[in-house]
Amino acid sequence: MTEITLAAARAALEGKLKPPGSLGRLEDWAAQLAVLQRTLEPRVERGRVLVFAADHGVAAEGVSAYPASVTAGLMRVSAAGTTGIGVLGRSLGVEVEVVDVGVDEDFDGLAGIVHAKVRRGSRNLAAEPALADGELEAALAVGREAAGRAIADGVAAVALGEMGIGNSTAAAALLSALTGVGPERTAGRGSGVDDATLMHKRGVVARALALHRDRLADPRAALAALGGLELAAIAGAALAAAGARRAVVVDGFISTVAVLAAVRIEPAIRPALFFAHRSAEAGHAIALEALAAEPLLDLGLRLGEGTGAALGLRLLAAAADVLREMAELAAAAPAGEAGTGEGVSLDRAAAVEERPVE
Amino acid sequence: MTEITLAAARAALEGKLKPPGSLGRLEDWAAQLAVLQRTLEPRVERGRVLVFAADHGVAAEGVSAYPASVTAGLMRVSAAGTTGIGVLGRSLGVEVEVVDVGVDEDFDGLAGIVHAKVRRGSRNLAAEPALADGELEAALAVGREAAGRAIADGVAAVALGEMGIGNSTAAAALLSALTGVGPERTAGRGSGVDDATLMHKRGVVARALALHRDRLADPRAALAALGGLELAAIAGAALAAAGARRAVVVDGFISTVAVLAAVRIEPAIRPALFFAHRSAEAGHAIALEALAAEPLLDLGLRLGEGTGAALGLRLLAAAADVLREMAELAAAAPAGEAGTGEGVSLDRAAAVEERPVE
Repeated sequence: MTEITLAAARAALEGKLKPPGSLGRLEDWAAQLAVLQRTLEPRVERGRVLVFAADHGVAAEGVSAYPASVTAGLMRVSAAGTTGIGVLGRSLGVEVEVVDVGVDEDFDGLAGIVHAKVRRGSRNLAAEPALADGELEAALAVGREAAGRAIADGVAAVALGEMGIGNSTAAAALLSALTGVGPERTAGRGSGVDDATLMHKRGVVARALALHRDRLADPRAALAALGGLELAAIAGAALAAAGARRAVVVDGFISTVAVLAAVRIEPAIRPALFFAHRSAEAGHAIALEALAAEPLLDLGLRLGEGTGAALGLRLLAAAADVLREMAELAAAAPAGEAGTGEGVSLDRAAAVEERPVE
Repeated sequence: MTEITLAAARAALEGKLKPPGSLGRLEDWAAQLAVLQRTLEPRVERGRVLVFAADHGVAAEGVSAYPASVTAGLMRVSAAGTTGIGVLGRSLGVEVEVVDVGVDEDFDGLAGIVHAKVRRGSRNLAAEPALADGELEAALAVGREAAGRAIADGVAAVALGEMGIGNSTAAAALLSALTGVGPERTAGRGSGVDDATLMHKRGVVARALALHRDRLADPRAALAALGGLELAAIAGAALAAAGARRAVVVDGFISTVAVLAAVRIEPAIRPALFFAHRSAEAGHAIALEALAAEPLLDLGLRLGEGTGAALGLRLLAAAADVLREMAELAAAAPAGEAGTGEGVSLDRAAAVEERPVE
């Protein structure tokens, strides 16, 4: 298949019926997608949000504003379609698949979610490795398989999100491991903890980093030590989808940290990544900086679940449509000249020169 | 009908299954819409972008990067549905109505647009009043009627946009008249003029402000003097839609200036206004400040046509769906407790207090 360069995509956008660059960041996304899809007629007919859910042993340290049982509750509500991402997915016309990769409750009878539990929650990363190597591989595979299902269904872009009480602590620890930035900057308020709990949370992350310090240089080893079954699944999904040149729309803090781990495993996936929004969670800026990413939206979101990514997915589809469907500049030539294809009267420089001398 | 207070809407959002405030700016829009629609179950089932198009006599001064004939070209392309707003409207699932309120060409046979031409372009505002009083009233009525059609069709929210070569000059002059801020800050690059043309454009605005200085204290008189048939139509549409408690989603620089004129005519419409995005056009910040408005998106858009407002309309509908459809916090209570409605285990303070002492 012929490669499309970023310059060619930019040139195609310049030829559209609008002042150059006047669709702003949407044009950046359209051009990036054209390169990824190897066509100047990119398209996101179907988009799907993959939401990976898991519990975290570290929740026992009291690092969240909510009890761990909320993750299981979110799964039951997911089945009913009335979580935040359930509502937004329906509202925005994007598909949502919720995958249980490690929630600490049995849901065998629950319809409407994908059952792929690796274990009932990760271990407490502040006391021991969160995941055994085999568990990490299994969680990565759960993500790969979700991406594979989406691709088989003809989905052009996947958005990645998560649910899991305690996972902002795991993500903060992983971000510190991957970047060297300390927990005082990577650990934030997550679900909304108070000052005392925030201090405590940072201490828990520092303890985990000290405990696992010999395992943190390698991204896979760091992912196993600090875990998060859903973080691993997100990484696996990003690797598989991007590897197949599907667009990957990344959500907020936790998803971005998981995707950063994926990029450290395989840097070649970076051009497939679209960063949907800047989260209100403080550590997100550090993760974005490590990825040289400038997100599209800044709405003060910090819910997770892929909610920001769902918005991004809708806008990515719109950006694709602009490049594929919008008329050429010459189409607005005066009647009678429209057919020449030369667009003579639209020469911008000539128009400026028509300005009378004052 | 019972009034809904902002506090009541906020409280309903706090009760949803998410950390308080974690849907950020979407929650602000949901709450504002609940107050406007007088219900805690707000809804935007149908949204419509009203795009008003007109030409400007001031284009003869050479203030645009494009010849005036492009406005007419845009109308023909609008009929084909492949303008920027045509593509985005379809992509985002919002309706688009393009209204010829004053394009300088006859389109009698053109399907797919609304024919409501008041005159073929406004007069040159730098040389004479752009609109006679009767023409202003007619243009305001065109906007009112477009809003009325939308309301009759069951549209819950209208987005307002424009097309018109030269209209950033008219908008800059009107903004200066309404705020007292000089043309060196209200007049920007518009469609993309070079430095020399920008200087010239500011001079044209300054000349117009001096010429009409005795008529600028009253917003209607300023609108007539500096005109823009599409600016007047936008003002009329905003007044009518907001007056009927329909949400009004405002686009970029030009639309915001027109809406500012409407607010000066009738300040009571302000709570119905939703500002979609911060335009890359420099003067937009001044117009937003005059309205104490903080827009939702910042995507570097500067196309106009209602393109940013169409995105805003989609997000407004999503915000409404969140408030109306998302589960209550208590729905995620542990199995067996979900039915109590007390959500005991979800008490955030209690969860924090479970934190073990280090």
